[in-house]
Amino acid sequence: MFIIGELINGMYQDIAKAIKEKHKAIIQKCALEQVKAGASALDVNCGPAAREPINDIQWLVQAIQEVTDKPLALDSSKPQVIESGLKVIKNKAIINSTTADPEKLQALVPLAKKYNARLIGLTISAKGIPQNKDQRLELAAAIVAHCAEEGFPIDDLYLDPIVLPVNVAQAQMKDILESIREFKIISEPSPKAIVGLSNVSQGASARSLVNRTFLVMALAYGLDGAILDPLDKDLMDAAITAELILNKHIYCDSYLEAYRKK
Amino acid sequence: MFIIGELINGMYQDIAKAIKEKHKAIIQKCALEQVKAGASALDVNCGPAAREPINDIQWLVQAIQEVTDKPLALDSSKPQVIESGLKVIKNKAIINSTTADPEKLQALVPLAKKYNARLIGLTISAKGIPQNKDQRLELAAAIVAHCAEEGFPIDDLYLDPIVLPVNVAQAQMKDILESIREFKIISEPSPKAIVGLSNVSQGASARSLVNRTFLVMALAYGLDGAILDPLDKDLMDAAITAELILNKHIYCDSYLEAYRKK
Repeated sequence: MFIIGELINGMYQDIAKAIKEKHKAIIQKCALEQVKAGASALDVNCGPAAREPINDIQWLVQAIQEVTDKPLALDSSKPQVIESGLKVIKNKAIINSTTADPEKLQALVPLAKKYNARLIGLTISAKGIPQNKDQRLELAAAIVAHCAEEGFPIDDLYLDPIVLPVNVAQAQMKDILESIREFKIISEPSPKAIVGLSNVSQGASARSLVNRTFLVMALAYGLDGAILDPLDKDLMDAAITAELILNKHIYCDSYLEAYRKK
Repeated sequence: MFIIGELINGMYQDIAKAIKEKHKAIIQKCALEQVKAGASALDVNCGPAAREPINDIQWLVQAIQEVTDKPLALDSSKPQVIESGLKVIKNKAIINSTTADPEKLQALVPLAKKYNARLIGLTISAKGIPQNKDQRLELAAAIVAHCAEEGFPIDDLYLDPIVLPVNVAQAQMKDILESIREFKIISEPSPKAIVGLSNVSQGASARSLVNRTFLVMALAYGLDGAILDPLDKDLMDAAITAELILNKHIYCDSYLEAYRKK
């Protein structure tokens, strides 16, 4: 699976402080720890309190690129912040994210095309958070249709069903899982499915347990990627084992270590 | 989910010895520990080396019934051993198990009817272990058809797709999971799906991790029950959390404890 490490995010105090003080070593350590733990890519988010996100994201990207060449996911609700990051990214970037709103799609799909980036599309719109599977599929279809019209390669599109916290939206969990399966049959070639995992346990007890249980279920439904905390070893063990059961990598007695060394 | 505790089985040395020496306290302790850990029912198997299984199973059932009124699953390949156990069982029994072979069905379905027992049907036949989903569904359909003809209530039928070890049959795991989903649409009312869980990790490293990861996936595919080790706390935590996500019980901050107290 495509694992995007979530920890370089200005909503965490230590990262916010490092960005403010331009303390490169803290960011680079956080990047390397996630890569070592199995991240395929790294999310980069200046955080809600950033005063100069257009500059900050460039500084973050450059600091991280000094220590790793893993793909970076530029995480912002502001297209101009994402474009600023794209200008300095060396490898194939990920845009995190567009919604199904026409103005967002019109701003971000051309950027994704121009920079040959992957694009995460959230099945959400100005009307609010979807309340069931049909609403998720309707928004997903709108995103896919827009991308297809613009000539954006659907292979590079990751649809996110919007994972809600289990403690407030328990009745929607099955719909969210089924959305993952149905996203894949919207078009041929099929878009990929991704989730922002940690939200499922927001405000819940036993967060790691809830996260890894949901992730295993989502993988069984065909999930391709997740934004998550790769330093959660139990979570990574569960993900690796789920992919073993799904025959994505070959069994050997030391399959956990073998996967990590890969 | 319907959890059948697997530990009262003569293939374990301590249980075999207790059966041989008619040491009731060991069996009763094993029964109570499993019930306390969350078992909804208990498997009862005299083991491969039992010399007098027809008597032994009655002794086991009576010993267990002195300390718990949980349903018991009579686990034997010999119909006469199962019938012997049925004669002394007080509550609704589970017959574990029939295969899809006509002679097995002809022996066990009438017994299940006569004693108002639940019946586990393995999708296996004298031809061997099924190699893919279609073979599983064909055998499942044969079992359902036989039960329907005999007037056995399909609500009380649990189909088992035959879980193979991940280290020898990795390519079949997805088929096994999908069989669980498809069993449910064979008839209306639908049969239930059950697995003998531990086999998935037979000979593998990280057994508990493999067991719980497969169980979570199977629950996401609609599994109703499993024969498993309820003393594996991580496994039970995973099962309870999977059912939470599937909205089978209501979230509260102490949902793990709340479920166990139930």
